[in-house]
Amino acid sequence: MNVGVLGGGQLGRMLALAGRPLGLHFRFLEPARPAPVDGLGEVIRAPYDDPDALRRFARGLDLVTYEFENVPAHTVRQLETSLPVRPPSAVLRTAQDRVAEKEAFERLGVPTAAFHPVDSRSALKEAIEHVGLPAVLKTRRFGYDGKGQIVIDGPRQLDEAWAAFSGRQLVLEAFVSFTRELSILGVRSPAGQIAFYPLVETEHRRGILYSTLAPAPLAGDGLETCARAHLRTVMEAFDYVGVLALELFQREDELLANEMAPRVHNSGHWTLDGACTSQFENHLRAVVGLPLGSPEALGHTAMVNLIGRLPAIEAILEIPEAKLHLYGKEPRTGRKLGHVNIVAADPGSVRAALKRIEALVA
Amino acid sequence: MNVGVLGGGQLGRMLALAGRPLGLHFRFLEPARPAPVDGLGEVIRAPYDDPDALRRFARGLDLVTYEFENVPAHTVRQLETSLPVRPPSAVLRTAQDRVAEKEAFERLGVPTAAFHPVDSRSALKEAIEHVGLPAVLKTRRFGYDGKGQIVIDGPRQLDEAWAAFSGRQLVLEAFVSFTRELSILGVRSPAGQIAFYPLVETEHRRGILYSTLAPAPLAGDGLETCARAHLRTVMEAFDYVGVLALELFQREDELLANEMAPRVHNSGHWTLDGACTSQFENHLRAVVGLPLGSPEALGHTAMVNLIGRLPAIEAILEIPEAKLHLYGKEPRTGRKLGHVNIVAADPGSVRAALKRIEALVA
Repeated sequence: MNVGVLGGGQLGRMLALAGRPLGLHFRFLEPARPAPVDGLGEVIRAPYDDPDALRRFARGLDLVTYEFENVPAHTVRQLETSLPVRPPSAVLRTAQDRVAEKEAFERLGVPTAAFHPVDSRSALKEAIEHVGLPAVLKTRRFGYDGKGQIVIDGPRQLDEAWAAFSGRQLVLEAFVSFTRELSILGVRSPAGQIAFYPLVETEHRRGILYSTLAPAPLAGDGLETCARAHLRTVMEAFDYVGVLALELFQREDELLANEMAPRVHNSGHWTLDGACTSQFENHLRAVVGLPLGSPEALGHTAMVNLIGRLPAIEAILEIPEAKLHLYGKEPRTGRKLGHVNIVAADPGSVRAALKRIEALVA
Repeated sequence: MNVGVLGGGQLGRMLALAGRPLGLHFRFLEPARPAPVDGLGEVIRAPYDDPDALRRFARGLDLVTYEFENVPAHTVRQLETSLPVRPPSAVLRTAQDRVAEKEAFERLGVPTAAFHPVDSRSALKEAIEHVGLPAVLKTRRFGYDGKGQIVIDGPRQLDEAWAAFSGRQLVLEAFVSFTRELSILGVRSPAGQIAFYPLVETEHRRGILYSTLAPAPLAGDGLETCARAHLRTVMEAFDYVGVLALELFQREDELLANEMAPRVHNSGHWTLDGACTSQFENHLRAVVGLPLGSPEALGHTAMVNLIGRLPAIEAILEIPEAKLHLYGKEPRTGRKLGHVNIVAADPGSVRAALKRIEALVA
């Protein structure tokens, strides 16, 4: 089967590595050169909105999926005229716009922080009255890894914040003073079968995911059940197909949806070594219509991102439980270059190995 | 790092899939088209003894390894003049010749069945006096998957057996009435570090590996210790680097070495899903000089080969613990097309899933 993937970054690379053993072949649409998917399938090197490249990309494919969220809506519309696009484009459009996303959460009864759209300086004042302070001013579109976000603590920062984003569509969100951050991933088949990965704990540094602990320590059945219910609600509302990630804030015993990603997600990278079936394999199984694999955790796993620069590979691999996943990217500040998974039978061993990794990446 | 691989079959394919996350790049020398490694690296399509192709193959590589044993000795010699070849060529030459292999086992004190070289009709008679009946007449070279073997029960079969192999160098081996077949794999680094995978039980059908149970059920510490000692002896004698497989017969409490494979091996395919670090990754770590990964089993694993024809993929994947590995080969009688691993926390669940798989491949 020939699978087309919009985007050719590390997520595409890991999809391809997971898909070859299932007999799948891949074609990528990716503007950048070099790209992490190079050498793992055909790469159409063109902008996402080049209609001629889109025709070449679509030719002979069985279906299209995406590993990158900021694909232009009309690109997906053009592809949808001739091919199944999974996950469905409605969820992509929703996830691309923070206001539409938050409205969907509210409509579906998934708790989320107070928010208000902001498209003028006066609307910002109005939004603060609605949302309160502290709050986070964010761009509605194209934000990732903490880019496009400013925390506003007091009225003095308003002008500065407004100037930083001038001319862009914004949203103000209540600042959530969370106990911790969590993430839940699930995968849904075209027939509506759902497999849930265990709830995981995530830690962000400078707005970028730094580490994941899977399963999330001390997450009682209540939290897990609640997170699964929210994810199921979103998946069913969109007649979703593929892996969906839902990032959550935990505040005491309460869960608030922060954002969703309609694709494989960094908070699921632990599944490559720590789950019976990885998120990459299960996403592919779902989008091509194969039965889903078991999402069970094989033990306790910690995932640490390698950001900006790579420590000595030898030093990482001297930790016997460390599994290294490099993306083939050139080092650059704030760039995700790879990640390390550490799997062990008990949380204590994982924490010990994690400390060794942290000393290397510090 | 650029790794050259002699051979481009499924073992090369799984090496490449394991090596990309470590940042390795691959070039293969493979005469056949299509080949399982297609699309996973550069493929030099040429016979193994084409000197010009060998020069193109070697250019820019950091080292050479092999996934196929029957590479001509002079090919390896040519490559060795300019590049490290790992595992060392001495072990390859030994493993290519059943008599040299058996002599090495004897010299190293690794128990093996009685054997006698046969290069004439009269030598066959002499060999039977030495070895006894029943016995197995085998070609000294180029045997695999049970090809090139005839069991001799009585003197009536001698003429027939001799005629079948006429003109080839042969060896007669005592027929071992074994309790079961076992296999042990280990990996050794250039500095002499060794990691042992657990002893596994193998079952062959029509001379081809059919299934593996890992760890081997009811293998006491005594068997495990003995198997490791034999493997260590062979590895150290050859100053071995990479994965080495040692196939064993168990007869009551005794272990007899059957043959060795100086490469990743079918009896280690379970490690892709059932061990912390797969044999493919550990072979690569060893040959490029990176620290070895943990060989610990993550639970209980059964591996079943898909031979000759593929059952419906959907039916296999409906078993939630089943992990499918296809090789991208066209079906043909007796050909290995893929394998399925089933990993579970307890041997009972593995056996139940194994029964479901066996019903599909029967």
